[in-house]
Amino acid sequence: MFGAQALVTTLADCGVRACFANPGTSEMHLVAALDREPRIRSVLALFEGVATGAADGYARIAGRPAMTLLHLGSGLANGGANLHNARKGRSPIVNVVGDHATYHLHLDAPLTSDILGLARPLSVWAKSAPTPAHCGTLAAEAYAAAVSGRGPATLILPADSAWTAPAFPAAPLASTPAHAPSAAAIEAAARRIKGAAKPVVLIAGTALQGEGLAAAARVEAAGVRVLMDTFPAIQARGAGRFAPSRMQYFGEMALADLAGVDLMALVGTRAPAAFFAYPGKPSILAPEGCEIISAADESTDAGAALALLADALGAPKTGPVSPLSRPGAPSGDLSVADIAASIARHLPENAIVADDGVTSSLPIYALTQSAAPHDWMFLTGGAIGAGMPLAVGAAVAAPDRKVVALTGDGAGMYTNQALWTMAREGLDVLTIVFANRSYRILNIEFQRTGAGNMGPTAHQMLSLDGPAVDWAALARAQGVEAVRVTRAEEFDAAFERLIGAPGPKLIEAVI
Amino acid sequence: MFGAQALVTTLADCGVRACFANPGTSEMHLVAALDREPRIRSVLALFEGVATGAADGYARIAGRPAMTLLHLGSGLANGGANLHNARKGRSPIVNVVGDHATYHLHLDAPLTSDILGLARPLSVWAKSAPTPAHCGTLAAEAYAAAVSGRGPATLILPADSAWTAPAFPAAPLASTPAHAPSAAAIEAAARRIKGAAKPVVLIAGTALQGEGLAAAARVEAAGVRVLMDTFPAIQARGAGRFAPSRMQYFGEMALADLAGVDLMALVGTRAPAAFFAYPGKPSILAPEGCEIISAADESTDAGAALALLADALGAPKTGPVSPLSRPGAPSGDLSVADIAASIARHLPENAIVADDGVTSSLPIYALTQSAAPHDWMFLTGGAIGAGMPLAVGAAVAAPDRKVVALTGDGAGMYTNQALWTMAREGLDVLTIVFANRSYRILNIEFQRTGAGNMGPTAHQMLSLDGPAVDWAALARAQGVEAVRVTRAEEFDAAFERLIGAPGPKLIEAVI
Repeated sequence: MFGAQALVTTLADCGVRACFANPGTSEMHLVAALDREPRIRSVLALFEGVATGAADGYARIAGRPAMTLLHLGSGLANGGANLHNARKGRSPIVNVVGDHATYHLHLDAPLTSDILGLARPLSVWAKSAPTPAHCGTLAAEAYAAAVSGRGPATLILPADSAWTAPAFPAAPLASTPAHAPSAAAIEAAARRIKGAAKPVVLIAGTALQGEGLAAAARVEAAGVRVLMDTFPAIQARGAGRFAPSRMQYFGEMALADLAGVDLMALVGTRAPAAFFAYPGKPSILAPEGCEIISAADESTDAGAALALLADALGAPKTGPVSPLSRPGAPSGDLSVADIAASIARHLPENAIVADDGVTSSLPIYALTQSAAPHDWMFLTGGAIGAGMPLAVGAAVAAPDRKVVALTGDGAGMYTNQALWTMAREGLDVLTIVFANRSYRILNIEFQRTGAGNMGPTAHQMLSLDGPAVDWAALARAQGVEAVRVTRAEEFDAAFERLIGAPGPKLIEAVI
Repeated sequence: MFGAQALVTTLADCGVRACFANPGTSEMHLVAALDREPRIRSVLALFEGVATGAADGYARIAGRPAMTLLHLGSGLANGGANLHNARKGRSPIVNVVGDHATYHLHLDAPLTSDILGLARPLSVWAKSAPTPAHCGTLAAEAYAAAVSGRGPATLILPADSAWTAPAFPAAPLASTPAHAPSAAAIEAAARRIKGAAKPVVLIAGTALQGEGLAAAARVEAAGVRVLMDTFPAIQARGAGRFAPSRMQYFGEMALADLAGVDLMALVGTRAPAAFFAYPGKPSILAPEGCEIISAADESTDAGAALALLADALGAPKTGPVSPLSRPGAPSGDLSVADIAASIARHLPENAIVADDGVTSSLPIYALTQSAAPHDWMFLTGGAIGAGMPLAVGAAVAAPDRKVVALTGDGAGMYTNQALWTMAREGLDVLTIVFANRSYRILNIEFQRTGAGNMGPTAHQMLSLDGPAVDWAALARAQGVEAVRVTRAEEFDAAFERLIGAPGPKLIEAVI
């Protein structure tokens, strides 16, 4: 058996069922090996950022890693922004990158680069397979590293390791996606919470799903306010589920929200930091004098920790959940509030929302709290361009669920090639593009950073008009049915119709 | 003065006249500084690979660096593939990347990453400005490093260095774009060439332009065959100019072409290596027993070296040049040969061609050897997706020249956002997309690497149909006038019409 086959067989044995690929010459033997591995669904992306973002979305929904297939250092760089998001979101990915044959590297051919050097800042684990005999064992190690380390594990495969025998598949290695909580730490935290004047609990990870979320509701019912991270990987929400408060994005708003809080207990997360620093504004999202303690760190099963904490606090057996509430039909010139109403009205049960909507998503997030139960995926690492790729991966992971991608028009342009993969694979993704023809957030940030008055050059750097991208045409050009709407009634009718139809669709919402 | 202003003022003092930007929150003070610097034209890109590729194209045409403006590590990663091409093509770029405020970094906010770690493999120089006082001096150092080191110099600007005073512009530093040739090395090479049975001279750099190219013709006239690198940064060519042979892409073809050669003298380049390794095929592009000597390395002014070599060889005062030859009008179903004929017929004098055409470009390159004089820019680092961004930069550098971008449909998709920048800036770029609906080169490479028979999965990974991208619609969606043609007569008429019209245009050539 050749090295490429050993790598692919090992990953399939470990449980990999999807490969998001953009291969080149140095990966042809991996393509051939995938050709012969029926357990893995190979999905082509026309840009590597689509492949890595899809692998992230797949992991968030499937709960296990997919593999990627990238072409040398340049392909890795192209996939880097969404690998960054996956690393920050603690999404496991087996990130496979081809390389030149080992004996070819010293010649410094045009595509030669320091792939390991590029991989390290983007990965929780990075190694290259120096011989075919390493391919199976390193594949098993990469899989376990991705699961245990909660992030992208980058496995580099030189072409001669890929095309040479003998190589053998390796058995899967034990991996630990999350540690069991420490009963002592939970007890100590409970005592501190009981003794505090105004405590809060900040949660993330598995505390935002299933039993963990039910435990969060119990803690709230015990009289302790529960907040969640601003941008966790995924949150179960909607009617019948507990809706924790969300840490505010801007530091001064977070501090106002937390005024008087004297204790913050962390469960499955870290001390909250502002997304950006601003002159004279706070970087740490906790009031002066508020003590921050950790009941369970990011490596810990936060849901299990929270259940123990609820018990230790003597919480009731159940807590508050959101009611089901469907807003009325919106009307008039289209606004983000209207879009929120339509989505809340028509979102089907068990849908998945991939959120890269930047400024526009907030009202939609708020109003869908009482929509049918669904999962919401966030922009974990701040690198915009994640929304449509996340949706691709989610749709591959869960072919029986509807996926809604929310994307700003600026954000969507980075990875617009995701539309083609949606069309190629016939994925059930409805993409909503917020066409405000602007990096709207930057118009806010320019003021917040104190950069002064905006002249014509600065305005041009933050504006996306002149020309406005015709998103409906851009989608159709890549095989995705699309409409452009400017009225709330139109949006409502289009969303209701398209969310019920099979295959990829797009609504350009001009706001 | 704030740090961001000192950085921008210093770069403008050094001679920077263009900035290709995709800024975010951490770069708002740089945007404000650019707003107040009339000497620098700021050009927005909707994806960072467009910005870095444009800076590369700008440098190849202007002969001096532009600056970029990228958002943190994720923006740098997105720009990485075209920075790789620039590094391999020895194109100077001042690559400016924002970062969080220094005091914010330890909080590991969502967008925090190891920017220096990512920058090093992509740059010839990489530093971060720890205080505002460093901004001016490091900007001058970065400019000099880009020019002297011939590649991207990455300057990282933390937000608090950007927004804090006092900072001062620094004076430009001396830089050395190329070293003077060594007369002794040239004399020695000339003696070896005279003594060889079948010598060749392999050239690149300034030997492919102006006086250097005239010297190359003289060497050829002296009876020594002159070859050029397969993928140099830029070559002056067309009627009235010497056309050196080009090193063949595939190793076995190169070796057949070089059969019997016993000496290869390098002028402004390195020993030639195959683009990729293949099982059982050569990696070094020189016959067994052929000695390779260096008359002038990559850091040397190759044109000046070649002029000395021509003298040392006692070459005639002039050498062969290409005639002007305009092919007849093509007809029938459109083929690449027909496209070649049309471009050779209608290419205006002093045009610039940005070549990312992969398999389709070869016949066009051959036939335009006798077209009107023009410059040809190559894919230096093998990372496809360079063509349209290079064209953007070339058009900004030379607003009075026509630019033709040749791109495969697979290659073009990586950076299709370049079309929007062409429209926004009204650039005189005519893009030809070779719509063969395939990674055509990979269908060849799959066989060459011995990956076996192609099954349905492998076929799907290399094919771009199902659905075919509608390139004309994709261009119009971004504000670029476009047509799709399937007949040779149509292409000829469209090319003639559109190359004569102002502003960006695109022809989707279905082949």
